[in-house]
Amino acid sequence: MTAPKKDNLVSYQEVQRHSTQDDCWMIIHGKVYDLTRFLPEHPGGKRVLLNQAGMDGTEAFQEIHSEDVIARTLPADAFVGILDQKTFTGKAHKQQATPEELLKKAEKMMPLSQVINLYDFEFMAKKTMKPEAWNYYSSGSDDEMTLRENCNAFQRVWLVPRVMVDVSQIDFRTTILGYPCEAPFYMTATALGRLGHPEGEVALTRAAGQHGIIHMLPTLSSCSLDEMTAARMPEQTQIFQLYVNRDRATTARIIKQAEARGCKALFITVDAPTLGNREKDMRTKFTDEPPTEMKGEDVQRNRGAARAIGSFIDPGLSWKDIPWFRSTTCLPLVLKGIQCAADAVLAAQHGIEGIVLSNHGGRQLETARSGLEILPDVMRALDAHYKTHPSPSKPRMEVYIDGGVRRATDIVKALALGARAVGIGRPFLYAMGGYGQKGVEKAMQVLKDELHSVMQLMGAPTLKDITADMVDVSSLGLHTGAPIRNYLAEEVYEPLKPPDLSKL
Amino acid sequence: MTAPKKDNLVSYQEVQRHSTQDDCWMIIHGKVYDLTRFLPEHPGGKRVLLNQAGMDGTEAFQEIHSEDVIARTLPADAFVGILDQKTFTGKAHKQQATPEELLKKAEKMMPLSQVINLYDFEFMAKKTMKPEAWNYYSSGSDDEMTLRENCNAFQRVWLVPRVMVDVSQIDFRTTILGYPCEAPFYMTATALGRLGHPEGEVALTRAAGQHGIIHMLPTLSSCSLDEMTAARMPEQTQIFQLYVNRDRATTARIIKQAEARGCKALFITVDAPTLGNREKDMRTKFTDEPPTEMKGEDVQRNRGAARAIGSFIDPGLSWKDIPWFRSTTCLPLVLKGIQCAADAVLAAQHGIEGIVLSNHGGRQLETARSGLEILPDVMRALDAHYKTHPSPSKPRMEVYIDGGVRRATDIVKALALGARAVGIGRPFLYAMGGYGQKGVEKAMQVLKDELHSVMQLMGAPTLKDITADMVDVSSLGLHTGAPIRNYLAEEVYEPLKPPDLSKL
Amino acid sequence: MTAPKKDNLVSYQEVQRHSTQDDCWMIIHGKVYDLTRFLPEHPGGKRVLLNQAGMDGTEAFQEIHSEDVIARTLPADAFVGILDQKTFTGKAHKQQATPEELLKKAEKMMPLSQVINLYDFEFMAKKTMKPEAWNYYSSGSDDEMTLRENCNAFQRVWLVPRVMVDVSQIDFRTTILGYPCEAPFYMTATALGRLGHPEGEVALTRAAGQHGIIHMLPTLSSCSLDEMTAARMPEQTQIFQLYVNRDRATTARIIKQAEARGCKALFITVDAPTLGNREKDMRTKFTDEPPTEMKGEDVQRNRGAARAIGSFIDPGLSWKDIPWFRSTTCLPLVLKGIQCAADAVLAAQHGIEGIVLSNHGGRQLETARSGLEILPDVMRALDAHYKTHPSPSKPRMEVYIDGGVRRATDIVKALALGARAVGIGRPFLYAMGGYGQKGVEKAMQVLKDELHSVMQLMGAPTLKDITADMVDVSSLGLHTGAPIRNYLAEEVYEPLKPPDLSKL
Amino acid sequence: MTAPKKDNLVSYQEVQRHSTQDDCWMIIHGKVYDLTRFLPEHPGGKRVLLNQAGMDGTEAFQEIHSEDVIARTLPADAFVGILDQKTFTGKAHKQQATPEELLKKAEKMMPLSQVINLYDFEFMAKKTMKPEAWNYYSSGSDDEMTLRENCNAFQRVWLVPRVMVDVSQIDFRTTILGYPCEAPFYMTATALGRLGHPEGEVALTRAAGQHGIIHMLPTLSSCSLDEMTAARMPEQTQIFQLYVNRDRATTARIIKQAEARGCKALFITVDAPTLGNREKDMRTKFTDEPPTEMKGEDVQRNRGAARAIGSFIDPGLSWKDIPWFRSTTCLPLVLKGIQCAADAVLAAQHGIEGIVLSNHGGRQLETARSGLEILPDVMRALDAHYKTHPSPSKPRMEVYIDGGVRRATDIVKALALGARAVGIGRPFLYAMGGYGQKGVEKAMQVLKDELHSVMQLMGAPTLKDITADMVDVSSLGLHTGAPIRNYLAEEVYEPLKPPDLSKL
Repeated sequence: MTAPKKDNLVSYQEVQRHSTQDDCWMIIHGKVYDLTRFLPEHPGGKRVLLNQAGMDGTEAFQEIHSEDVIARTLPADAFVGILDQKTFTGKAHKQQATPEELLKKAEKMMPLSQVINLYDFEFMAKKTMKPEAWNYYSSGSDDEMTLRENCNAFQRVWLVPRVMVDVSQIDFRTTILGYPCEAPFYMTATALGRLGHPEGEVALTRAAGQHGIIHMLPTLSSCSLDEMTAARMPEQTQIFQLYVNRDRATTARIIKQAEARGCKALFITVDAPTLGNREKDMRTKFTDEPPTEMKGEDVQRNRGAARAIGSFIDPGLSWKDIPWFRSTTCLPLVLKGIQCAADAVLAAQHGIEGIVLSNHGGRQLETARSGLEILPDVMRALDAHYKTHPSPSKPRMEVYIDGGVRRATDIVKALALGARAVGIGRPFLYAMGGYGQKGVEKAMQVLKDELHSVMQLMGAPTLKDITADMVDVSSLGLHTGAPIRNYLAEEVYEPLKPPDLSKL
Repeated sequence: MTAPKKDNLVSYQEVQRHSTQDDCWMIIHGKVYDLTRFLPEHPGGKRVLLNQAGMDGTEAFQEIHSEDVIARTLPADAFVGILDQKTFTGKAHKQQATPEELLKKAEKMMPLSQVINLYDFEFMAKKTMKPEAWNYYSSGSDDEMTLRENCNAFQRVWLVPRVMVDVSQIDFRTTILGYPCEAPFYMTATALGRLGHPEGEVALTRAAGQHGIIHMLPTLSSCSLDEMTAARMPEQTQIFQLYVNRDRATTARIIKQAEARGCKALFITVDAPTLGNREKDMRTKFTDEPPTEMKGEDVQRNRGAARAIGSFIDPGLSWKDIPWFRSTTCLPLVLKGIQCAADAVLAAQHGIEGIVLSNHGGRQLETARSGLEILPDVMRALDAHYKTHPSPSKPRMEVYIDGGVRRATDIVKALALGARAVGIGRPFLYAMGGYGQKGVEKAMQVLKDELHSVMQLMGAPTLKDITADMVDVSSLGLHTGAPIRNYLAEEVYEPLKPPDLSKL
Repeated sequence: MTAPKKDNLVSYQEVQRHSTQDDCWMIIHGKVYDLTRFLPEHPGGKRVLLNQAGMDGTEAFQEIHSEDVIARTLPADAFVGILDQKTFTGKAHKQQATPEELLKKAEKMMPLSQVINLYDFEFMAKKTMKPEAWNYYSSGSDDEMTLRENCNAFQRVWLVPRVMVDVSQIDFRTTILGYPCEAPFYMTATALGRLGHPEGEVALTRAAGQHGIIHMLPTLSSCSLDEMTAARMPEQTQIFQLYVNRDRATTARIIKQAEARGCKALFITVDAPTLGNREKDMRTKFTDEPPTEMKGEDVQRNRGAARAIGSFIDPGLSWKDIPWFRSTTCLPLVLKGIQCAADAVLAAQHGIEGIVLSNHGGRQLETARSGLEILPDVMRALDAHYKTHPSPSKPRMEVYIDGGVRRATDIVKALALGARAVGIGRPFLYAMGGYGQKGVEKAMQVLKDELHSVMQLMGAPTLKDITADMVDVSSLGLHTGAPIRNYLAEEVYEPLKPPDLSKL
Repeated sequence: MTAPKKDNLVSYQEVQRHSTQDDCWMIIHGKVYDLTRFLPEHPGGKRVLLNQAGMDGTEAFQEIHSEDVIARTLPADAFVGILDQKTFTGKAHKQQATPEELLKKAEKMMPLSQVINLYDFEFMAKKTMKPEAWNYYSSGSDDEMTLRENCNAFQRVWLVPRVMVDVSQIDFRTTILGYPCEAPFYMTATALGRLGHPEGEVALTRAAGQHGIIHMLPTLSSCSLDEMTAARMPEQTQIFQLYVNRDRATTARIIKQAEARGCKALFITVDAPTLGNREKDMRTKFTDEPPTEMKGEDVQRNRGAARAIGSFIDPGLSWKDIPWFRSTTCLPLVLKGIQCAADAVLAAQHGIEGIVLSNHGGRQLETARSGLEILPDVMRALDAHYKTHPSPSKPRMEVYIDGGVRRATDIVKALALGARAVGIGRPFLYAMGGYGQKGVEKAMQVLKDELHSVMQLMGAPTLKDITADMVDVSSLGLHTGAPIRNYLAEEVYEPLKPPDLSKL
């Protein structure tokens, strides 16, 4: 293998010579990298890299990654040199979507003004997103029962509105960890935003800024942290979602970077020691590949992707690590992915500032209960805890939930049961997928309009008027039957299917 | 803008010049009005008005409105003048339906004699009504789960009949607030009756009169109050449903008018501080409009209709207003839309004469429980209240429910649980839509025949024999599964659909 | 109107002159009757009679009636005279089915040897029965939810088998009111047996005789009581189902006749003061009629049939009548159609020998609970009753259930909950419809074979080993969800449909 | 009938003369047998034998049977002699599947590397297995509700994961009766393995050996015990499933043989005193037969198969037999098919080493509850038993369950509720059907991979960390509604159908 000097120009012909699993170079944004040692660690699997081995991989790269991911991920010695552009004979990489293409796509889109609920966005996304984006965003683990349960659980809670209450003035502003949020929901972190739209997380954060909604920036973003924080409006609050890396030095670096860029809190994901088994997503990848090649391959390979990413995320993360986080940052700490009352109490005992009751959008443990379902248990346990352990100097830990929120009634149910706010993720991705930033803004406006109306109908002019006696939860814990059919939810859900044999 | 004298003749050509959002005239029944300032307040949205701007809008107007609505709604200075008929070059407006058209429609109708249950009417209405009428009448809020739950709840109550009881004589006559009603159901108020049939509420009240059934006249009627009360039979009882206007003087005027016209009670709607989010209805309106125009429009617009009507209905209505009602009228007061035991007790404490447990036919707050479901709770709470606050001088507050009644078994279940009577609305609209007054009469006869038979089968010859131990309510509060399939109910329900992209 | 002498010959031409609603003669089995006054009382409605007015109605008559029904039903003066056969120019009436026709039908039948369960019979009956028979037999009241609930209820009871029990010898013989029955089920009374098969109840009783199964003879039989009792095998037990006539003299005559013909018990139907609203059956009748004629008809007519039969069955029947029955017969009395514990206790207090917990096969009161569901309540109440009112001289009242039994597991569940035996009706009609007596025998054999196997698998070699701890009834009272799908039951059920407009 | 000497050559022409029910010879693997007396006892029914009467039946024989079944089953005098091969004029029997055929089949198979869950195997098996194999393996008794309930029950248990637990190291090794098993599942006994794949149980045991999984060898194997035990790897554990024969001498011989071949435990089937009513399987057999012949046949015949096999399996097996087993073998005894707490306690009282809570894969008693559902009851009862009857000298009886396991989450749920391990049967048959031994290995790998991931997500690094508070079982006992739809499970399930009349 040739070992050129790092500031040398590298010819395209030289690059083409390194196109095998044992010797794999690739051009990205005009630079040449040797990815041979990185192949087994690539979260998306080595195959997608090998498809571009010895070639210009920029187009596929930028669909998913921000430019700074290379600096964050590859060792310095992976850099081989600069592509000698005049030797390049490959195909110029396509722009992600030309204005003409967007227009063409838009013509089969429903006008944004006709969108009346969040399901419309999901429906359009299902129709128009490319399959790898749709399947990545929409999939859940195993049989996707938890995915759907997250929505269904809300249908097992029924509302108890009050009447003859003056609801001329509705006010649903709140704060999260002391930071103002114009409505009791925040935009939760979702990975790989550019898969759905070229602007990626930047469009998301801008829409959130327009609406005064707090945005949680993801570790696995497509856009770089710099891009995301640069897109922040004055007065806008951003918080940071953290996957804890095995390498604590790396983790410390990421935390400090988020803090430096003005993120106001650290939401540590605790429900993903390994990534869930998302078969709809896995199935997509298979159909992209020629089945003949697969036959000879190691049958172990399929699980490889999840295992590989296990090398990034630390399965060893435990309560013992809390002091280390405190020593590393003065940001408030929130644990994202708490799933039972006992762990909620442990969090309170460890002095954590907030918890998100979440099953990770149904993407991790199958048949884990929804955040909504465990919320009453958690609130009871915390009440008991604070009764015996009052802490006058420090506010009570805040509790949020996420998963399955599609309507303002969902938000009101969570708030009535004790949540301070709810996180919403996929619906904004779907809105962005079809309509970009404007779509996300419309989605937020739909929620705000619904919330205004629902609070009037509940007889609750302010958030503190939404009380526990306004919900009937007697059926919440029962997992015995499908609730009344939700036709729109069924329409936008794409059921799991056995493999399509005609594609083999 | 031209400002003609009010008694001047106005030429059609002059009218045609005022055809924009900023300057909008319209001809209605030969008179010319300037609607510019009224546009944003029109409950049906400004678009339907703009469609007729500078033109003769009589045809569209009379489909929905009684003639006196103009006097009740528009400020006096909106009147511009009289159309100079000889200058008119527009199309003569169509009669609502010629006898020939009605006949043609009738030929695909099932003969009325073959109708055997209320579902038949709904089925025919779904087949033959024009979409805007069907969608307006049949729609519910959000995902229409409450709409369907209203029917389903009855299926979770099972009957416990007694046998070996002499049921040779069946008597189901009752009184409501002291006024006789030939059966324990009344015709509840439903808006915009002429949308479904040219005779509108007049046909409804006449059918009710034929059957000795009390009719609740709606505020948002298509026919005028004079028309409706004029159609009353001697001895027939009418009651009045009231939407409380922000402007209390207007409200007082309406109340006094109802009282003067002989209405016997005031049913004040308390569950509609804002109008619910009825998406099936909204979707219809969109498909009528050219999508190209929409693209540039304000995305806020969609919610505008509901907000606009908020300017009529007072979201500030509260318990504090009860004394004002008492000072304004000596009619008995009934609150329509009570949805929990606490508010029922509050009503009793305020000396209210009756309450309707109702979620407004599933058209307001989504996942509000059905009147039937909360009935046992309410009766328990009222029993407790009257035990500690006996009031020998005044009868106990009467309790009614509405929503989802389709069978006499439904009525019997409500009565067994303590309701004095049930309100029925949509089924009569569907019957009228297909068959006019005769259809509504048949619908009432079907219910009476069923009730006769069901009371025999229950071993209950009179209404007071229908007791609480005749129903098994152990499953009533469970929202976990669909009851046994009700095939007819499924057939007549039209599921919500995502937007039809082929229509864009 | 001519008034001929009763022994005169009447010419066909004379008969033809009396063909209107106001003057209606008919030939039946060569005799001429004046049915004018009987028209409004005909249980099947006057229309079917008017279709044959002035004609030979024998063919339609014999499909449903035994010959002796005339003597039992018509007043003596309805007889006009003997048809003068040589004047007859009408069509000779068809035999019910020629051997060739039966063969042809049989060729599309599944061979009887391949029938493996009771659903097979129902499936074949649905395919091959004429619609009026299928719809009469298979229909239930209103939305047929009770009809289906009868089957579903069994699916909410789960079995608790015991193992390591010697089940080499299985014995399921029992007695009913002291009379031996080879298995713990009896053939319950079903009306109009000849509608499904020309042999009618005679075939049913013969099959029951072959299997040592007790047969309950119906009041509304197609075959005459003489025919049915003549078909009885030596040692075979028949019991008699009684609809109580308003005219107690008639009732007494019927009872004495049943007693004289050797029936061993009187099963008095108490759940039918009026006949239920069977819409599938009603719909059939409509489609047979020309819709044009209907248009002018009284809209009240539809309910006429049920009301008319009300003139036969006494809605005044009550507990006060028990002494009269005792004075009229010494047969043991059983009340068929008890539906709650309170009435079961009343029966015991009145010294009744047995009760059938039944909702009349879902044909009477809609949403009445199944016999199976109320069985535990009833047994508890009777236990309590007998504890305080021991009666050493008389055996405890026997309790049976009917409705929805399709499998031996169903029988075992009922027995475990305290039933002495179960009644089975429709399945035998379906078996007879396709295969005559041999089919009914096969159906009984299937049940016996299943029962043998199920008792082995339950670890219960005799009926007394089937105990209450062998069933899990914790879900029995829950009406919130459909049980696991029963594909065969769904396949053979024909859902209610809205009217078929294409047939108008 | 000719009676040749046993070592004589028999000509093919002589064999052909014995081809009736009363005189039935057959050639199997070149030997001639007289099966006349065996006909009524053949578990698969006499018809399949008569189809080959007087012919060479080797091909049909080897599809189902191992060669040694003749020695085990037929009396010695059934052997007639050796076929004189040179006289043979019949068709040479087909090889079970040529390599070419397997390849052709494989081409429509999904590559094994693309299989991602156990449903994939079931889906492929449904597509590619011959109907008699698919229907035999996949069928359950009666309406197959228990069959499906076994899967559904798992969906009514929801998981309660813990977070912030170090799950870097996952260890799911366990022991069964002291013998190591690499994962907490074993391969349970399934009959007639060669029906699905020519290698039969040998392939199953080899796959189990590769994965360190314990294999339970079936009595009704297609391969001989010698073949199965010879395929065992060093260190691999095999256990033996026993159907107890009426003839205890035969039973003793089988036990001793299993012991001699190195089986480590005896799993005695106690839930099959008679074989269940598997109608899907029965239906298959019918459609293979000409319906014309059937018409004349005894209608009793259908049940014959189940009854016949009743002559092998002893319905008299009872607790009294336990001492006999102890006297016959020193292997640990496990009772397979315990279905309630009372019998579990009886087993403990009898000193049994282990029990399998099982309803025999839904193939025996319909509406018997799933092993999972009764597990909590059983564990409570055993806890109570051991509290009052401590036995320091002997370990507690081990409890296993089987039925419906398809996912690692299922395994974890069973373990949390107290099971030591779960048995898995059909999924491995389906994997073998499509892919042979490699398929079964892949199936095991899928389960192990899932288990690794699920234990990480549960926060349970070892099996003892999977505790009872990690499952929410509040809905487990409710049989009122279908859980959330499991699309894959629905796709691979083939609903019961009424008979296909077009095939008659």
